[in-house]
Amino acid sequence: CETVQDDENTMSILVASDVHLGYIEKNGERGKDSFVALEEIFTIAKERNVDFVLLGGDLFHENKPSRKTLHTAMELFQKYCLGDRPCSVKVVSDQAVNFGHTSSSITCVNYENPNVNISLPVFSIHGNHDDPSGAGELSAIDLLSVTGLLNHFGKQTKLDVISLSPVLLQKGTTKLALYGLEKGSMRDERLHRLFLNHLVTMLRPKESLDDWFNVFVLHQNRSKHGATNYIPEQFLDDFFDLIIWGHEHECLINPQWNPIKRFFVMQPGSPVATSLCEGESKQKKVAVVKIRGREMKTDIIPLKTVRQLYVENITLADGVHPPAGSSPEAIEALSQAYCEEVVERLLLRAQSQKSGHPRQPRKPLIRLRVDYSGFDIFNAYRFGAKFADRVSNPENIVHFLKKSVKKIRDDL
Amino acid sequence: CETVQDDENTMSILVASDVHLGYIEKNGERGKDSFVALEEIFTIAKERNVDFVLLGGDLFHENKPSRKTLHTAMELFQKYCLGDRPCSVKVVSDQAVNFGHTSSSITCVNYENPNVNISLPVFSIHGNHDDPSGAGELSAIDLLSVTGLLNHFGKQTKLDVISLSPVLLQKGTTKLALYGLEKGSMRDERLHRLFLNHLVTMLRPKESLDDWFNVFVLHQNRSKHGATNYIPEQFLDDFFDLIIWGHEHECLINPQWNPIKRFFVMQPGSPVATSLCEGESKQKKVAVVKIRGREMKTDIIPLKTVRQLYVENITLADGVHPPAGSSPEAIEALSQAYCEEVVERLLLRAQSQKSGHPRQPRKPLIRLRVDYSGFDIFNAYRFGAKFADRVSNPENIVHFLKKSVKKIRDDL
Ligand SMILES: [Mn+2]
Ligand SMILES: [Mn+2]
Ligand SMILES: [Mn+2]
Ligand SMILES: [Mn+2]
Repeated sequence: CETVQDDENTMSILVASDVHLGYIEKNGERGKDSFVALEEIFTIAKERNVDFVLLGGDLFHENKPSRKTLHTAMELFQKYCLGDRPCSVKVVSDQAVNFGHTSSSITCVNYENPNVNISLPVFSIHGNHDDPSGAGELSAIDLLSVTGLLNHFGKQTKLDVISLSPVLLQKGTTKLALYGLEKGSMRDERLHRLFLNHLVTMLRPKESLDDWFNVFVLHQNRSKHGATNYIPEQFLDDFFDLIIWGHEHECLINPQWNPIKRFFVMQPGSPVATSLCEGESKQKKVAVVKIRGREMKTDIIPLKTVRQLYVENITLADGVHPPAGSSPEAIEALSQAYCEEVVERLLLRAQSQKSGHPRQPRKPLIRLRVDYSGFDIFNAYRFGAKFADRVSNPENIVHFLKKSVKKIRDDL
Repeated sequence: CETVQDDENTMSILVASDVHLGYIEKNGERGKDSFVALEEIFTIAKERNVDFVLLGGDLFHENKPSRKTLHTAMELFQKYCLGDRPCSVKVVSDQAVNFGHTSSSITCVNYENPNVNISLPVFSIHGNHDDPSGAGELSAIDLLSVTGLLNHFGKQTKLDVISLSPVLLQKGTTKLALYGLEKGSMRDERLHRLFLNHLVTMLRPKESLDDWFNVFVLHQNRSKHGATNYIPEQFLDDFFDLIIWGHEHECLINPQWNPIKRFFVMQPGSPVATSLCEGESKQKKVAVVKIRGREMKTDIIPLKTVRQLYVENITLADGVHPPAGSSPEAIEALSQAYCEEVVERLLLRAQSQKSGHPRQPRKPLIRLRVDYSGFDIFNAYRFGAKFADRVSNPENIVHFLKKSVKKIRDDL
């Protein structure tokens, strides 16, 4: 794939997902993290001069974002997506079908609207957080699409048979067929069954079938949660070249080769940790995917404004050795001291791993998963208060568990 | 005022107010009335080729409009306000001050934004229905302003002293100073007191003071409700030439001359009857105000798509004369028959007064205010059911009262 060079035949796409705009917006410390992340993503997109941004769902954290969140999102799209730079990717499919599903007033891709000056097009499906609801089955992202700020694709309205019509994009000689799967209010199990029963059909371009680079964007469980509430990779059509997998928040954006299906899978993850788990503590990144003909090249770009997260599993029995006959108070003091040590160590690590970006928040997130078998728990809230000036989540630094207890992951 | 002709020095303004978008949106019969009204207003504005639309507040009925209502509003603004027609009114005041109060990303009037193509500018203040709330003190109309669809002016943030900076508009030799007063969350009584204590100051243009035609838009009680929860006309500065008075729903849009203050007052009223009272039953109209120099001419334009409303006061004792010894059932039957007669008469009148516009709703609103002194009430709901096919408010056609009871008006 090293042969892809930037030229008039190279389509360049910034890939990201799960920005969760408005996540804990009322939190004075962390409430702006999601907006800072979107701003960094847009900044990278402009610096890299990509043809468009492709998002994998959950742009908004709440189904009904607050007015402030909607307003700030609109400000950012206005600021970064409008301008004079011409867009050189042509949409050659039926644009009203691709984008007009929620509004008859949307008849084309936003940058072909003669009344709005788009310099950075954004294409997105919705996720489970910003799924359609209420009268008109509208998603929060439809307020961006109706105002010309975003191209919402992937809508399917049937629940029994799904057939997906791609957005066909062309730049020079390169042809990209972009498929999006929105499950709307459909349950994972149901979608799983539709795939099993071959009731999910991908419509293919009629002409020059082999010339198309085929990308599929979906927003589903990828890891197995129960027997059928996830989508196994082997369900997906093998004519795809690249799968963009939204919803999973761990950043696994380096394209993973599936040797059986012969496609790559990119899992952008979320730039905002909505759960303090190990997956989310990995470095957050976005990617610029360059496609020329049927070839693809990927630049992975670490995000520099993301709030740092350190998750550490510790066992009190390993580090706390109270002398025989110690009082409960003395034992608790030792337990706390041990945990404090770990927090201090993580804070040092955070300090040394700062990105240097002026907008990266000063205070990291710290999570100790404390196996307290054989010990008493202590007041985690009071413990955290000591770090209020240095940790952004003092209220829940320590999470007590016993060895046998499995982590139930938060909702993505 | 008959001397104002259309020319390059004539500013032409469509004046309307209180559109209450989304009013009873879930009502299958009447839920779309507010959107039809806005569409007619925009259509008139385009036919008359006005320079801009000026709205007096309560564009949205709910402080937090549903997604569907916001989306439909955005669709209509997109459809009617975008396009290539050039806007020839210049804003000569500080535009960031005038319009940028809720977003630093708004630095100018929408039609000077190089990235959005505005053909029909709209200027509006908010009302009490769409007043600012929540984080950032944003109004629903700010979601239109941040996307470049509307120019939100009149913001004042202080509660103790108000000084209003006008939007200064110029077309050819005509100069218009446009003042808007938004009370935000301030109570009427408080605003009344600020006026009384001369704490509301209108900033004036520094140069050629006498050349400006001065318009003041406010959204307040005009009729007296209690001693101090309204704004008397005599409180207003007498340098104004024209007052546009929003909030009152009765259409009194013909300019009324105030001989003491020497200004005109226009009260556009609401195109959607949100209360079934006599005031709302008057013909709904909008106006095109033409200003050249210090002269003004007004064209009054009846709205043709508005749902008809007929309100009639009747007294059972006047029309119902049961023979002596009649059973209660017999008397009730006579009362109902009398009311039915009146409804039939009003329906005939409605039929004869149809505008002929294809979008005017078929079923009118009918309200009988029934003085039942000396009689028993009957089941108004069952009574109305007979008219379900011909009246749009069968559930509350009849409103029983006794003579002494005064009508308490609904919230405007
Ligand atoms: Mn998700
Ligand atoms: Mn997510
Ligand atoms: Mn009002
Ligand atoms: Mn009103």
